[in-house]
Amino acid sequence: MPQQQPPSQSQPRRFSPARPCPVEDVPRWDLETDVVVIGFGAAGACAAIEARQAGARVRVLEVASAGGGSASWSGGEVYVGGSGGTSVQRAHGFEDSTEDLAAYLMMAGGPGADGERVHTYAEGAEAHFRWLQDQGVPFKGTYLPGKWIEPTTDDTLLWSGSEQAWPFRDKARPAPRGHTAQFKGWGGGKVLMEKLCAKAAELGAEVHTDSRALTLVLDRAHTVVGVVARMDGVEKFVRAHKGVILCAGGFILNKAMLARFTPGALACNKEVSGGNDDGSGIRMGMAVGGAVTHMDQFFATVPFFPPASLVKGIFINGRGERFINEDAYHGRVAHYVLRQPEGKAWLLVDDAIFGRPVIKPDVTVAAVGETWEEVEAELGLPAGSLVHTVKTFNEQAEAGRDPLFHKAPDWLRPLTQAPFAAISYCSAELEAHAFTLGGLATRPSGEVLDGDGQPIRGLYAAGRSACGLPRWGEGYSSGLSLGDSTFFGRMAGKAAAAA
Amino acid sequence: MPQQQPPSQSQPRRFSPARPCPVEDVPRWDLETDVVVIGFGAAGACAAIEARQAGARVRVLEVASAGGGSASWSGGEVYVGGSGGTSVQRAHGFEDSTEDLAAYLMMAGGPGADGERVHTYAEGAEAHFRWLQDQGVPFKGTYLPGKWIEPTTDDTLLWSGSEQAWPFRDKARPAPRGHTAQFKGWGGGKVLMEKLCAKAAELGAEVHTDSRALTLVLDRAHTVVGVVARMDGVEKFVRAHKGVILCAGGFILNKAMLARFTPGALACNKEVSGGNDDGSGIRMGMAVGGAVTHMDQFFATVPFFPPASLVKGIFINGRGERFINEDAYHGRVAHYVLRQPEGKAWLLVDDAIFGRPVIKPDVTVAAVGETWEEVEAELGLPAGSLVHTVKTFNEQAEAGRDPLFHKAPDWLRPLTQAPFAAISYCSAELEAHAFTLGGLATRPSGEVLDGDGQPIRGLYAAGRSACGLPRWGEGYSSGLSLGDSTFFGRMAGKAAAAA
Repeated sequence: MPQQQPPSQSQPRRFSPARPCPVEDVPRWDLETDVVVIGFGAAGACAAIEARQAGARVRVLEVASAGGGSASWSGGEVYVGGSGGTSVQRAHGFEDSTEDLAAYLMMAGGPGADGERVHTYAEGAEAHFRWLQDQGVPFKGTYLPGKWIEPTTDDTLLWSGSEQAWPFRDKARPAPRGHTAQFKGWGGGKVLMEKLCAKAAELGAEVHTDSRALTLVLDRAHTVVGVVARMDGVEKFVRAHKGVILCAGGFILNKAMLARFTPGALACNKEVSGGNDDGSGIRMGMAVGGAVTHMDQFFATVPFFPPASLVKGIFINGRGERFINEDAYHGRVAHYVLRQPEGKAWLLVDDAIFGRPVIKPDVTVAAVGETWEEVEAELGLPAGSLVHTVKTFNEQAEAGRDPLFHKAPDWLRPLTQAPFAAISYCSAELEAHAFTLGGLATRPSGEVLDGDGQPIRGLYAAGRSACGLPRWGEGYSSGLSLGDSTFFGRMAGKAAAAA
Repeated sequence: MPQQQPPSQSQPRRFSPARPCPVEDVPRWDLETDVVVIGFGAAGACAAIEARQAGARVRVLEVASAGGGSASWSGGEVYVGGSGGTSVQRAHGFEDSTEDLAAYLMMAGGPGADGERVHTYAEGAEAHFRWLQDQGVPFKGTYLPGKWIEPTTDDTLLWSGSEQAWPFRDKARPAPRGHTAQFKGWGGGKVLMEKLCAKAAELGAEVHTDSRALTLVLDRAHTVVGVVARMDGVEKFVRAHKGVILCAGGFILNKAMLARFTPGALACNKEVSGGNDDGSGIRMGMAVGGAVTHMDQFFATVPFFPPASLVKGIFINGRGERFINEDAYHGRVAHYVLRQPEGKAWLLVDDAIFGRPVIKPDVTVAAVGETWEEVEAELGLPAGSLVHTVKTFNEQAEAGRDPLFHKAPDWLRPLTQAPFAAISYCSAELEAHAFTLGGLATRPSGEVLDGDGQPIRGLYAAGRSACGLPRWGEGYSSGLSLGDSTFFGRMAGKAAAAA
């Protein structure tokens, strides 16, 4: 018997994420289910778990050959707290309130923060942490003090954002809220996703790997009623009686989308992705009238520390001026670095704090000198500019103050021990890591909203296919994307199952 | 005979811009035409003119009781040049090249500049100016030197952007490119629009005023085939055999859309609009899968001059530091003012240049002193911060240089004549004027693009319903929006007529 033929290469592509398939064009339903989840990453796995537990039949379409998505390449850190504190926060003497968590998340969301989403999350985050444990995700329960990009130990709790930095510390009582799945080194995401994917399968979600969702099926009443997918090379029509949940990630790998929607991210040359953040989930939602928001926003970071001593350095721009409190979250610092005029930024250090950044030891030391005058001259800066900045900083740091940028006293130390150096973070030398934050507008329930703010029947989104809690590059904290994806993935799964 | 009944108030709204009407739901076609133009402002009038001249039947649906749109409330300034210079540029000794115009427009478009659109415009702008004259728009042909927000005379040519300011002047040879319709005072837009609307009507475009487009009609092949509209209170179905052109303006008046897409613009309390920039055109395009881009971007300005002497002042923030070359376009300055930490910004002036801004004379003078130390103390700034900034500026201005911010020598003068003052542009006192720049992604032809960058058949957009040449608040220049709207409105009219 001949094998089923793949579609001819010369034939025009019949289905595109950017165009829905009218239900009238569906020749047959190859598969039927209640809820179709597109993407088996953090959001998709949690959506599948909740939808199954609510009694719905669930099929997951995953384009890769195994589940996990970009989350499985992450550090496995989840930003949770509030409600008096998680068990781990409390065990280590950190109180945390729902109000402080909410206040922090509102600041982290920036000018477009979504109050309803923030408050839903702040109220549920502590219980969500317990839920993750209930799914079998291991958390060692230990606390790692200090300032890290990701823990290199298997500890659980760490400071993972700008909580202790100005202006956040003034408006929300600080607490460490990064909770990392137990794994020695950088790879807790793999543990997290193995547990969540296994749980979804164990509960009876039917997982189809090597299955690419091609487009949504829309009926005449503008309800999403299914999906067209290429499964193991064959085009199939999948009926979703209750709804479709888009959990297909962001679009950092789609350069054409970046150029149109997020040109700022093109300056970043390291994509944070498991390999399938091609924006197809977002495009499928747009095709049926889903609104996209904050598409200009992206997470970016420049891992300029550890060693943490480098945080005691000061960043300057081409005017020899500081521009940020360097103890803010490294991604916030990175956004400020990225927007300095003519792409010029350097970290000034003295001999006492000098070290090569662990993550990128081959940084360019752009200038070295026995005096700051020499460093200024070697960088070609206007005479007196850098020198004035360092002099002012040193005087104030000596007094334990930073009236201009409000760096916390722990990180204040005059830069007085020669030789002095300037480490280049100018655009030519910059290695910045990035993923996208813009996506479909949704309610906390995951319902995708149209241009009028009304839900599109049958359609949900979560994870980076949606615009979630993290929606402002300058406000990002480690663990926010995974926290958002797992929490609101669950809500979307529940809402779709109840439809 | 009873009058036709209006729809019952208790009945749910049947049509929304955010949901297309399937062609199967159209009970009858009340009107038929080739091209439907939604909105009779600058883009719509030019689209109607070209579509008629190409032989297409044209119907224009205008929600107001007369044509003109927001353009008729503007200064009537069009940003044109290139091709050796317009007749007016050349008459006053200004050469202008297509390359310089294109280089400037690429910078003005910011990180998301659209090269194809820019080059199409740069090559056609000079001919477009002649075309506007041919339509009967009067341009006096005189040149007004100096620095203005809008001319208060009836002169034609003026410097209307950042051409002479850093960094633009280094990458594009400066030329004045603002060409204003002849009108004594601020109201050239009314003249411009009277001429363009009259021309469209004269050519046989059927103009329906008091007609609100409710939604697009979409067929099963995903082609836009018509519009549902409320015309004089009655719901009508309008067939468009060749295409629909969305020229319905931006969304500065729609606070819900601003909150979702453009939260930064909520800080501006003066809307630049003719009264109907409700985003309905953009939402209609989104509903059929049209991609929107740069929705976060907006024009904003703070008219801190004239008198032009105030441009010789220096802006400082809450750290007592400068942040912009004050001779840049006022809208660029405004964006820098808007983003200073904690909303703090002041213009420092001395007695020689002091004056009250003509457009808002009741500014708050936040501090006055015989010395800069007194002003610094009165503003509550860190000791020495403002004083160092002024001292450095004064020394360099005395030498005719501004190595930190590159303000042009014409505007450099030390601030040494007591008494000294700080005029507040802090957020509490700020009056900022704004309109939106984000909109539907289009080709230069006006074809609306979907999420994959492919055109949606039968759908075009121009003016502020599209994301055009002006797509970056910091890069705006007066005349860019009208130039873009009239030029690409014409292209959309031609393309739709040729469909």
